[in-house]
Amino acid sequence: MDVSSRPPPKRLTLAMIAERLGISTATVSLALRSSPLVAEDTRKRVAALADELGYIYNRSAASLRTARTNIVGVVVNDILNSYFAELVAAVETELVEHQLTVLLCNHGDDFARQRNFLETLLQYRADGVILVPSVGTTPKDVTRLETAGLSTVLIAREVPGLDDTPLVRGDDGAGLRMAVEHLIGLGHRRIAFVGGRSQSSSGRERRRGYEEALEAAGIPIDPDLIFTELMTRNEGRAITDAVLARKPTAIAAFNDLIALGIVNELRRRGLEPGRDVSVTGYDDIEEASVWSPALTTVWNGQQEVGRRAAAMLTGILQGRAPEQRRILVTPELRLRESTSAPAA
Amino acid sequence: MDVSSRPPPKRLTLAMIAERLGISTATVSLALRSSPLVAEDTRKRVAALADELGYIYNRSAASLRTARTNIVGVVVNDILNSYFAELVAAVETELVEHQLTVLLCNHGDDFARQRNFLETLLQYRADGVILVPSVGTTPKDVTRLETAGLSTVLIAREVPGLDDTPLVRGDDGAGLRMAVEHLIGLGHRRIAFVGGRSQSSSGRERRRGYEEALEAAGIPIDPDLIFTELMTRNEGRAITDAVLARKPTAIAAFNDLIALGIVNELRRRGLEPGRDVSVTGYDDIEEASVWSPALTTVWNGQQEVGRRAAAMLTGILQGRAPEQRRILVTPELRLRESTSAPAA
Repeated sequence: MDVSSRPPPKRLTLAMIAERLGISTATVSLALRSSPLVAEDTRKRVAALADELGYIYNRSAASLRTARTNIVGVVVNDILNSYFAELVAAVETELVEHQLTVLLCNHGDDFARQRNFLETLLQYRADGVILVPSVGTTPKDVTRLETAGLSTVLIAREVPGLDDTPLVRGDDGAGLRMAVEHLIGLGHRRIAFVGGRSQSSSGRERRRGYEEALEAAGIPIDPDLIFTELMTRNEGRAITDAVLARKPTAIAAFNDLIALGIVNELRRRGLEPGRDVSVTGYDDIEEASVWSPALTTVWNGQQEVGRRAAAMLTGILQGRAPEQRRILVTPELRLRESTSAPAA
Repeated sequence: MDVSSRPPPKRLTLAMIAERLGISTATVSLALRSSPLVAEDTRKRVAALADELGYIYNRSAASLRTARTNIVGVVVNDILNSYFAELVAAVETELVEHQLTVLLCNHGDDFARQRNFLETLLQYRADGVILVPSVGTTPKDVTRLETAGLSTVLIAREVPGLDDTPLVRGDDGAGLRMAVEHLIGLGHRRIAFVGGRSQSSSGRERRRGYEEALEAAGIPIDPDLIFTELMTRNEGRAITDAVLARKPTAIAAFNDLIALGIVNELRRRGLEPGRDVSVTGYDDIEEASVWSPALTTVWNGQQEVGRRAAAMLTGILQGRAPEQRRILVTPELRLRESTSAPAA
């Protein structure tokens, strides 16, 4: 790419500021980093002059010399899914209170995109990262971050074989089990499970919760009622015909988006969700409770997961080892209108 | 904060790689930056060895010497609003195709958060930024980025007084005008306008579109029917009582979230949206068309705005001046179920 036409950044040297104020360049440098070694009055004079001169503090060079950058990465899978958008918002609220600059990455389960972003954090010496690991992430990918000094907290998903890295997530197995137990309690026996990735811990755990609930009730697991590798509303819509062909009386979806896609398609076919076919979601995104019919779903604690992960990371950055390295937030069943006893 | 316990990043020198491969350090450096001066075979050998040794390419140091970092910032107002999430997804798709690493920022109309993020981009010499300017952004805040070599493209919102910076947005005035003309055509005369910020160009432009449609139809503007400084679904819900107290037969909302919040509250009060009270949204987020009743709204071209803004930026980074510096995407009215003639 031709970049010859771009003007070079206008850079003033520390020396120029130092000369104007009659102080040393070392003092200017410390002042710009808000060092406690510099008197508040001096710091203000340096800041005012730097601002007036349009000085851009050269953190690229500075970060080679100082340990902290106050930059933290937050990496999620899909911000089009309100679950992750709500999670990011909760994480950000906490990090911003600690005067941290947040760099977000939306990897879309593309391992290369995640890797490029994490490389950037490493190269720029970010302090830490809160990570929903993409499909394909290995323990080595994570330990490498920690070895390089990038404090890491995992959220929402596990990396199999990685037990020591701090982690905060909802208890996916318990949550999906609750939803299916609720459906069984209403009298359903042909219950489909729709969605999730077999390559992600949340996909595997929720499927396990589904299977455990069936087994506990003595209902045989029918592989024909299980549809995986689906994540979005449109994928929920597209699979509805195939699911209905198996004649389930209830559908336990992997997440709210898939459930809402299915609910929408049921309506288009003249079937009333919650009467003709029961549907449960997972996450309890804002949209779930305001739909008509309101969606029976499992609250996945995104605000709490986000808040606790951020608190764990800021604690680590302040030198405090987390009291608990693995936090499982207990999900809650939210009973609404999309489930009822099977039609006679 | 105590950081003394953090291990220093393990760094291998270029020299070590050079020695092992029997080539010069300059060649190693060029190879790691994928310079065309280095043979493909050599580049691969260097990359393989660097990878094997766990070498972290020190971009902090490298960026002091080379012009491009291949990092681009994308800054939006509120990723909890699907409009912005959809916009970001469209921007990212295009940027990732150009092998750019995307750093996202969600400023929530907090000017200080936006400033911290932009400072980080400047300090780390990012190549460019695609920016929904927060409330309070001045022309100087933007020209300063460009002077420092950070190519900037504005999206969704204008910065008043800034005419030269490349911009892509929907035509907000024309869009809201269409929605209100549609309501007037159905026979409505008491039409409320709900939402938007008077400090943002989209807020001002959409309000102008509302007022122009009324004026063109000879309907006096009633300030009691105008409710501003609202942006979210919950704010839409909370204002519904106050809006209904003014007895409008139709409500033109600033965005889909506010419209959906109002639709939801109408239902809770036993009023049927689209029959008892007509409601229009703005944006046409994915949720708008799948609601029941499906929302009459204005398509705001988020995919097109995102795609064109990203294409404009990548063009600029390749040294091509944009053919058109200001692109207004023409909105489209999407007629659905939430509007009808006023009840008799």
